[in-house]
Amino acid sequence: MQAYWMWHWGDYEIYHTYIMSNRRQEFGADYPTLWHGETAYPNVEFHLTAETDKPGYLTLHVNGKGYLLVDYRRYADGVRVEIGPGKHTVVVRVTKDGGLPAAYVESDVLPSGDGWLCTHMTAEKMPVGWRPVYDSPAMSPEQFPFSYEKVNPVKKESVQNEKSADGVLFDFGKELFGYVDINGLQPENQYGVFYGESREEALADKDALLFEYVEGKTSVRLTQRAFRYIFVTGSDQDQISLSAAYEYLPLKQRGTFRCDNEMFNRVWEMCRYTFHLNCRETYLDGIKRDRWPWSGDAYQSYAINRYLYMDRDIDQRTIVGLRGKDPVEQHINTILDYSLYWIIALEDYHMTYGDETFLKLIWKRVKTQYEFVSTRENEQGFLVGQPGDWTFIDWSEIDKTGAVCAEQMLYIRALRAMAYLAELAGESSAAYLEKADTLISRINSFYWDAEKGAYIDSYESGRRNVTRHANIFALLFDIADASQRESIIQNVLLSDSVRKITTPYFEGFELDAMCRIGNFGFFEDMLTSYWGGMLELGATTVWEQFDPTKNGAEHYAMYGSRFSKSLCHAWGSTPVYLLGRYYLGVYATAPGYKSFRVEPQLGGLGEIEGTVPVGEGDVYVHLTKSALTVKADIAGGTLLWQGREYAFPAGEEFRLVY
Amino acid sequence: MQAYWMWHWGDYEIYHTYIMSNRRQEFGADYPTLWHGETAYPNVEFHLTAETDKPGYLTLHVNGKGYLLVDYRRYADGVRVEIGPGKHTVVVRVTKDGGLPAAYVESDVLPSGDGWLCTHMTAEKMPVGWRPVYDSPAMSPEQFPFSYEKVNPVKKESVQNEKSADGVLFDFGKELFGYVDINGLQPENQYGVFYGESREEALADKDALLFEYVEGKTSVRLTQRAFRYIFVTGSDQDQISLSAAYEYLPLKQRGTFRCDNEMFNRVWEMCRYTFHLNCRETYLDGIKRDRWPWSGDAYQSYAINRYLYMDRDIDQRTIVGLRGKDPVEQHINTILDYSLYWIIALEDYHMTYGDETFLKLIWKRVKTQYEFVSTRENEQGFLVGQPGDWTFIDWSEIDKTGAVCAEQMLYIRALRAMAYLAELAGESSAAYLEKADTLISRINSFYWDAEKGAYIDSYESGRRNVTRHANIFALLFDIADASQRESIIQNVLLSDSVRKITTPYFEGFELDAMCRIGNFGFFEDMLTSYWGGMLELGATTVWEQFDPTKNGAEHYAMYGSRFSKSLCHAWGSTPVYLLGRYYLGVYATAPGYKSFRVEPQLGGLGEIEGTVPVGEGDVYVHLTKSALTVKADIAGGTLLWQGREYAFPAGEEFRLVY
Repeated sequence: MQAYWMWHWGDYEIYHTYIMSNRRQEFGADYPTLWHGETAYPNVEFHLTAETDKPGYLTLHVNGKGYLLVDYRRYADGVRVEIGPGKHTVVVRVTKDGGLPAAYVESDVLPSGDGWLCTHMTAEKMPVGWRPVYDSPAMSPEQFPFSYEKVNPVKKESVQNEKSADGVLFDFGKELFGYVDINGLQPENQYGVFYGESREEALADKDALLFEYVEGKTSVRLTQRAFRYIFVTGSDQDQISLSAAYEYLPLKQRGTFRCDNEMFNRVWEMCRYTFHLNCRETYLDGIKRDRWPWSGDAYQSYAINRYLYMDRDIDQRTIVGLRGKDPVEQHINTILDYSLYWIIALEDYHMTYGDETFLKLIWKRVKTQYEFVSTRENEQGFLVGQPGDWTFIDWSEIDKTGAVCAEQMLYIRALRAMAYLAELAGESSAAYLEKADTLISRINSFYWDAEKGAYIDSYESGRRNVTRHANIFALLFDIADASQRESIIQNVLLSDSVRKITTPYFEGFELDAMCRIGNFGFFEDMLTSYWGGMLELGATTVWEQFDPTKNGAEHYAMYGSRFSKSLCHAWGSTPVYLLGRYYLGVYATAPGYKSFRVEPQLGGLGEIEGTVPVGEGDVYVHLTKSALTVKADIAGGTLLWQGREYAFPAGEEFRLVY
Repeated sequence: MQAYWMWHWGDYEIYHTYIMSNRRQEFGADYPTLWHGETAYPNVEFHLTAETDKPGYLTLHVNGKGYLLVDYRRYADGVRVEIGPGKHTVVVRVTKDGGLPAAYVESDVLPSGDGWLCTHMTAEKMPVGWRPVYDSPAMSPEQFPFSYEKVNPVKKESVQNEKSADGVLFDFGKELFGYVDINGLQPENQYGVFYGESREEALADKDALLFEYVEGKTSVRLTQRAFRYIFVTGSDQDQISLSAAYEYLPLKQRGTFRCDNEMFNRVWEMCRYTFHLNCRETYLDGIKRDRWPWSGDAYQSYAINRYLYMDRDIDQRTIVGLRGKDPVEQHINTILDYSLYWIIALEDYHMTYGDETFLKLIWKRVKTQYEFVSTRENEQGFLVGQPGDWTFIDWSEIDKTGAVCAEQMLYIRALRAMAYLAELAGESSAAYLEKADTLISRINSFYWDAEKGAYIDSYESGRRNVTRHANIFALLFDIADASQRESIIQNVLLSDSVRKITTPYFEGFELDAMCRIGNFGFFEDMLTSYWGGMLELGATTVWEQFDPTKNGAEHYAMYGSRFSKSLCHAWGSTPVYLLGRYYLGVYATAPGYKSFRVEPQLGGLGEIEGTVPVGEGDVYVHLTKSALTVKADIAGGTLLWQGREYAFPAGEEFRLVY
């Protein structure tokens, strides 16, 4: 029978998240995460009780050290254990300090993977973690299954860098991630290898974020990094050859989008490519700098994934990897709001995949995360950051005195998610719902400013400052009532006097709200000026931030250094989500897309066309000014068009001409 | 300035305990612990704020990956960072998956070790862990600082083993622990190396607990193991040479004992040697088999150490290593009683060393351990094991139905220890004391059997079974009142109708109680028959268990296999403690031996003499039937002799002739 490597539930995700997160380097220094590390449980025990009607054998392979117990007799790994027909009890114990303790039980009669339980030596047993790709004893579950493709530079030229060192500049034509291979080196030479997402960065000597020196070798494969340009000093053009092993996650693209605005199509493609590069062990913020999973950034990535790959595995890896294990001693990424997004995302996860199994397995960790968050409540029940907590919300001039309104909005949303998840887990949701309701009435008395017709940031400072953030959440999370909603739209969203959002991160939320209220003009203007602006400057992936008023290499500066800005940042890919959600108009109305709605919208465009994943199937939407075509290969779809609902059957083209 | 490797408080102990505990092997298989594993925090951050009046430098060395932040500027490890005079903020961040993340900050102007704080990236900072021995960047804190000595076998002979294989038997003359080195091997031969604590075991082929096959080598150093005999098959006497690198903890022996009974002197020496072999990264149960730290066994080792080495470090390592980190999801060693001994031992630790610093640092982990224990309370407040908990007490026919009396005795003692420790930590002890008092009155109503004049094991079974265990605890822990005490002595301790204790483990407690009540005859009879019995059979170290009715190799069988009994078991060394505590009669009457008492006792002997460590000093006691001499090199001593108290000064011989 086919066997698989097995591990403690969650540990694969936690291990790979740890390894990935602590691979960061900057200016020649290793740069571990700013938050606590989580690694696998070192001692684990696997259990199987199973029956066979014929004789057979078992052989244990371990990643670590351990043994096999068959019917209470102990055997070393590698030993072939013969068993007779009948019921058998199999236990495997494994230990490993570092890495991922795992067991592979080869057998011709007993199953692997599902059916096995695992414990970190406590009374609680969980189903094992396993993945079909790890199907031979020779494979290591510590090796992440990326795909590779050899890529050659499209151009090479001899240039000097800022230090006036001679060298060769290789241009791969677009942003890439992978291993750089260099051949033709002279062992007696020292070579400098400078990475650039921009040409300027590659030529900036030690102002480049990533560089490395090589000597004593004739060829070398450097570690995996992001780049478009590679500048090699200490050589001339003819001596060395350089290529890259592009490393990527093999994902099946299911979402597409095309419209009659070619620039928008290029934007969509740039967003797709940017997002793909950032889909790795987990979602990344960006591929050059942090390469860390951030729960707020991930919250947007879940939505983008829903409209592009609908890949459940990467959602799971991100959710588990961000959360880690108990005890909870710190917010996710140290950020109060990021703990809340993590909880909220789980309700979305259920709507997307209808996967109760995963949610039941993670429920205990959800509750301890929630309990940790709730220790931050003040006497009003509002969340307030404590020493060591980062109250982020956005890089913006929010008045963060005391309890911050936007945090309470997220808390209300998270409490509703807790209620939803509690019901799934067979527990009572009442306390969460009651707390959410109480909080809504309290935020209305503490934060709602009737005169301004908006929520203020802080009630403690007395400044009564209004920013967009809390008000956007009040709309998106259905916290504002109908009249507050109208007031927020007029007094905040459409008001020029409320400071603009400046980060693409929060712009994602704003555009979501703008599309929600039908302000497609705002969205399309942003696509043109912001995303189109980057395209015009030659971007091949979406930048972490873009300010059209800057010039040349000024664009690449951030966080106080010349090239610290990421030029391939996942949070810039929200158009994939927004075009799928509001233009193609597809969304689930029951968990796992058992039912879904198509509510398409041209906005200011003349034609749109594309597909959106809907659970096991996809739905195709084509809309022009005179006709609408919808086709899904799965049942459950309802079309909402001009105020009317149309059920449409699976597998047939449904067409309206008007 | 001298720099030292630094790590997160507790992680050194946890790391080395993990590595040691998961080194167990049996019959060719690796044998990880039966309980959960604890390893170091993977991501840690070190902080120092310090001032220098002259310019200097800093260079970071890391065990793992990380960087140095000096005055908020980041540097890679290995970089020499120049600093000027003034106040500086130094931060080091390190990550490592597996092993012990650590930092070594070389500097000519800033200090190392004390003054640095460390956090596992949460808001709480603790003093760093460091040890003077790790004083150079070339050393690894993952290497435990044992001492080594080359030892040659005292005898070698050609023999055949049970399988009739020819081979050479090497006898080292006594129990040893270390690395076996073999030279003169032929690479084309396969050699079997069989370890024996007894000659029979070494010749028992694969019935020996430890064996290994070697081929393809001319010389080999095998892994560290316990043995007295080594049998090598596949060679004849002239071909190979074999020696051992004896590995031991360099401890300063401070306690001594001598008396006019030569056999007792040999017993004391055997106990000392046995105990020394079991003093390693932590206290072990035994050096051949588990090599695990067990909290109940350790409870006796703390006491033995107090009378032999008074080595605070090994106590600390054992305490921290047994406890691990939060969350608590399992009892220590899975055993309910062992969680309780762990708490109780901390009060003893304070009495022994007067060390409040350590207790304040571990206090948080004490409270979470206690909270975990208290989740096992039933409606009466009695502790009852839950699924996954092992209610051990002893290998004995205790009636373990429901709440077991001996557990409640330990709980009462642990609650008093909690009260003691809470006071030290500046917290209220009231709740613990109140709970202890309530429990005493409840055990008296539920477990005290007035007719039998003893505590029964279980009130739920209705069997009203009496064993020695709970009653011994009631005496030792001052739970029984004066009349119950008398009753227990007559009806249990001195009664032949109550089943005898059969394990040396619990015999330690019984002998303690016997000496406490002045029944020295019982103790001396046990020394003669039990310990003397082993000596007569040629033992060089104390066995895990001894039954004089057995014959030959029968002695070596245990746990269902022929040689599984440990022949070098720490719990057999309690005579070192008992002779020091009750014969030399020395014990602390204030924390850290700020005051101590000498209350000597000849028992049935004619003369006793020895030294006992008392804090920073030692006290010498010499007692014959006509004279008593006491001399301490430290103040604080009071002699109690024939009902009278004598204060005796430091540094002077105090002599009574009578």
